[in-house]
Amino acid sequence: MESSTKHNWRSKLHEIIYEADTHSGKLFDVVLLVAIIASIVLVMLESVEWIDNKYHFFLDTSEWIITILFSLEYIARIISVKKPLKYITSFYGIIDLLSTIPKYLSLLFVGSHSLVAFRALRLLRVFRILKLTRYIGASTNFVRALKTSRAKIAVFLSFVVILCIILGTVMYLVESKESGFTSIPRSVYWAIVTLTTVGYGDIAPITPLGQFIASIIMIMGYGIIAVPTGIVSSEMTKVNKNDVQTNTQSCSNCLASNHRDEAQFCHNCGNSLHEI
Amino acid sequence: MESSTKHNWRSKLHEIIYEADTHSGKLFDVVLLVAIIASIVLVMLESVEWIDNKYHFFLDTSEWIITILFSLEYIARIISVKKPLKYITSFYGIIDLLSTIPKYLSLLFVGSHSLVAFRALRLLRVFRILKLTRYIGASTNFVRALKTSRAKIAVFLSFVVILCIILGTVMYLVESKESGFTSIPRSVYWAIVTLTTVGYGDIAPITPLGQFIASIIMIMGYGIIAVPTGIVSSEMTKVNKNDVQTNTQSCSNCLASNHRDEAQFCHNCGNSLHEI
Amino acid sequence: MESSTKHNWRSKLHEIIYEADTHSGKLFDVVLLVAIIASIVLVMLESVEWIDNKYHFFLDTSEWIITILFSLEYIARIISVKKPLKYITSFYGIIDLLSTIPKYLSLLFVGSHSLVAFRALRLLRVFRILKLTRYIGASTNFVRALKTSRAKIAVFLSFVVILCIILGTVMYLVESKESGFTSIPRSVYWAIVTLTTVGYGDIAPITPLGQFIASIIMIMGYGIIAVPTGIVSSEMTKVNKNDVQTNTQSCSNCLASNHRDEAQFCHNCGNSLHEI
Amino acid sequence: MESSTKHNWRSKLHEIIYEADTHSGKLFDVVLLVAIIASIVLVMLESVEWIDNKYHFFLDTSEWIITILFSLEYIARIISVKKPLKYITSFYGIIDLLSTIPKYLSLLFVGSHSLVAFRALRLLRVFRILKLTRYIGASTNFVRALKTSRAKIAVFLSFVVILCIILGTVMYLVESKESGFTSIPRSVYWAIVTLTTVGYGDIAPITPLGQFIASIIMIMGYGIIAVPTGIVSSEMTKVNKNDVQTNTQSCSNCLASNHRDEAQFCHNCGNSLHEI
Repeated sequence: MESSTKHNWRSKLHEIIYEADTHSGKLFDVVLLVAIIASIVLVMLESVEWIDNKYHFFLDTSEWIITILFSLEYIARIISVKKPLKYITSFYGIIDLLSTIPKYLSLLFVGSHSLVAFRALRLLRVFRILKLTRYIGASTNFVRALKTSRAKIAVFLSFVVILCIILGTVMYLVESKESGFTSIPRSVYWAIVTLTTVGYGDIAPITPLGQFIASIIMIMGYGIIAVPTGIVSSEMTKVNKNDVQTNTQSCSNCLASNHRDEAQFCHNCGNSLHEI
Repeated sequence: MESSTKHNWRSKLHEIIYEADTHSGKLFDVVLLVAIIASIVLVMLESVEWIDNKYHFFLDTSEWIITILFSLEYIARIISVKKPLKYITSFYGIIDLLSTIPKYLSLLFVGSHSLVAFRALRLLRVFRILKLTRYIGASTNFVRALKTSRAKIAVFLSFVVILCIILGTVMYLVESKESGFTSIPRSVYWAIVTLTTVGYGDIAPITPLGQFIASIIMIMGYGIIAVPTGIVSSEMTKVNKNDVQTNTQSCSNCLASNHRDEAQFCHNCGNSLHEI
Repeated sequence: MESSTKHNWRSKLHEIIYEADTHSGKLFDVVLLVAIIASIVLVMLESVEWIDNKYHFFLDTSEWIITILFSLEYIARIISVKKPLKYITSFYGIIDLLSTIPKYLSLLFVGSHSLVAFRALRLLRVFRILKLTRYIGASTNFVRALKTSRAKIAVFLSFVVILCIILGTVMYLVESKESGFTSIPRSVYWAIVTLTTVGYGDIAPITPLGQFIASIIMIMGYGIIAVPTGIVSSEMTKVNKNDVQTNTQSCSNCLASNHRDEAQFCHNCGNSLHEI
Repeated sequence: MESSTKHNWRSKLHEIIYEADTHSGKLFDVVLLVAIIASIVLVMLESVEWIDNKYHFFLDTSEWIITILFSLEYIARIISVKKPLKYITSFYGIIDLLSTIPKYLSLLFVGSHSLVAFRALRLLRVFRILKLTRYIGASTNFVRALKTSRAKIAVFLSFVVILCIILGTVMYLVESKESGFTSIPRSVYWAIVTLTTVGYGDIAPITPLGQFIASIIMIMGYGIIAVPTGIVSSEMTKVNKNDVQTNTQSCSNCLASNHRDEAQFCHNCGNSLHEI
């Protein structure tokens, strides 16, 4: 009897925490979302020196409350799930643990407290809670396009990295050390800053030859940026064309395909598409 | 009789102010456009210290003239419109009020004068007056594409914000405080500056590990920018295709339109499209 | 007789200068191209102080030679063309004059010499001489796409300008004057630097609120850049689709259209497309 | 006999070095990849002063080992290939030589050692070894699109360069020398930094007119970047469309392929595509 009650109690908890169909499940999600955002804001404010000096007691107390709430949530998640180990070793499980432990560690080790900032990773739950991905596309087309592009973009970015290593090395040989090109890693860092058009200006060429090479790098970067954009654009256009406009119906009379989604009669022979 | 005259007078005023079909209506629009641009230029010049010192009297007088003209326009708009409250509480109504009040307030409170700068928001009327949106696309396709993309881009930008919060927090833990990463909000600000490829350089990593992470952020930003561009491009191409692939034929039987260019039979009722 | 000779001489000159079909016409173009590039390099070198100090005589002499050559070319162009006034008042005519006059003026007025730099505008002739535009697209599709996009991009850019004026004004009110936001024009300049993701860092917000607004501007800029790209991409894709893939032929038998360029038989009814 | 053995030995070596079908061929590729990356890391670390001071002996020894390995590889490549001269004068041959020689030269000439950095160019072999290009696209469509775009993008970039020369010259005339516009080449360098939205901030306009012109340049750059992106996007979409719109059917009569998806008759001979 007790076991059955416990089972019910656990499955109820699972429903509340992991699902969002029931009223209490939705409430839990909203409270969690607010708690996550509040915890991020707390960590942020605490990192600002003058705010921490002025409101240290309030911030510290609030953080202990949040930490205990997160700990309870973590324990509840472990209890309610069927395979606790799977959750604990999962991506979200590790993040959930990392966002509570540093606060407890701060009692033992001074300085470990700042690791509380790992809590920022919990923000990724926002996407899961709000189901934001649902808004991205009516279908999974958008995600499919990104996945198809991913390999191409990875190759493209590795090409950019190799280019930056070569260009950074050239600039290290060319530029004087006074202008900040003191080592190859720094020069490569500069090449990345330049090619991606970020351009901090903390390191900038001062010799004419260095500025000339820098100009070439910049113009290259201006042209190269068209490549990933072109990949994603064409991939998305392709996906759009395939799915949105036509369906896979085939006319039973003339076998014509590529019918519009709303078509009820074959555009080729006029036969009804609903006939079988 | 008087009431009727007043009515005529009010409807005439409404025509002049809110419409652009009559000669006086067009003249009003042009004068308003010139006055708005003049007022912006005045506010700008006044904010430049040496110009204000030299030409203070001229600028102040001109601004009073513009302010009184804008006040008269504001009163005229209230009088001539049927539902004055609706105008007053509308977006443009509030802007129109905000662009006159600060000047009057400056007589009472020193310093409130600078709020005159809100007048810049009146520039948004330029789009309405010039009907610039008409040039954007022969049809409403362009706007439709942007609207469809808006949700996707909003999700994308919120993803960028969350990414910047996480990356900023990581950099706060990694970088020394000497290089400007003094608090998490500042570090997040830096992450946004970097990922969007703006790159002021007021805060820049100086430790090797910080520069390494910064390099990864920059290369990510270089690849990520392809996503919004891809969304808008494919959305616009899709809209274009809808126009290009369909023709203006209308079925003689059921009046359905938007037929594929190669369609020979109505996709809605199966009637031959070649019949007359 | 003399008149006829003169006529022949003039038409010959016209052929050499304005056309590129004959051997001497091509030679003239090449010599002109070399002279233009040499003149640009000369002006550039002269502007570098230490080079000018060291090689002043050589640079000055070379420049006189180039100037006299350009003057002769200018006179030859006036003589050989049928309507000299039209050439003189044309875009290229004015540039050609502006690139010779400053050198002569430098004999009279000290300092006017630096205006020789207007000569850089002659570089635009490079496009005409090399007929580079020919490489842009086999057809005029590319140019057509740009022209169609131009109006949209102009509206878009004016929207960006108005946005920058409003955002710059807001930042002027928000930011302290110590951080460089000393006047509205400067703040608008900063807003443009930020929204276009250039980000010099000569002016950068230092107050938390200012940095927060700046972050919003940057993320907006990151999203907004997708719009012009989307316009041009979709316009070019549209043009591509219309011309490259299909032709305007219509089957004489079944009236089907949108045939592939290389199609010889109707894809719908199998009738030869060459029959009349 | 000996000659035959030698021949076998050489062809075996060729197989190992130049091909990747055999087990030892693959092993060679992996070892080479690791050696190249190790050599790059070594050169990088050596260029950092404090690391070089601390671990000079270890770094120097490792580099000698790598250099000797690369030398042996270079000799092996020359021996095993049929036309040694062709390899020596090839792009990769020159890079392979350049990445070993500086180390030997450093025994004779002090300072020449830093040229070891040319070794970074060996990274280009990564693409060949990993056959990364294979991942870029299932077909050669991607490369074809880039090749078609290349000419257009080259013209576009040369237009950008000419624009920068003109704009840089204008800024040189407009701006005071205190703000860094000391010569035309420097001003052109600044114009490139600005138009490509890199924006270091090492040179930035300080006069109102200069900032106004800079604003125009930035907004132009923001609009211009749409052009290369549009070119590549439309080119890739075009290539995609060619694939998507056609099917793999082959006419049973004339064997023509690349039929439109909706085609019912061969576009080449008019034979019905449904006949078997």
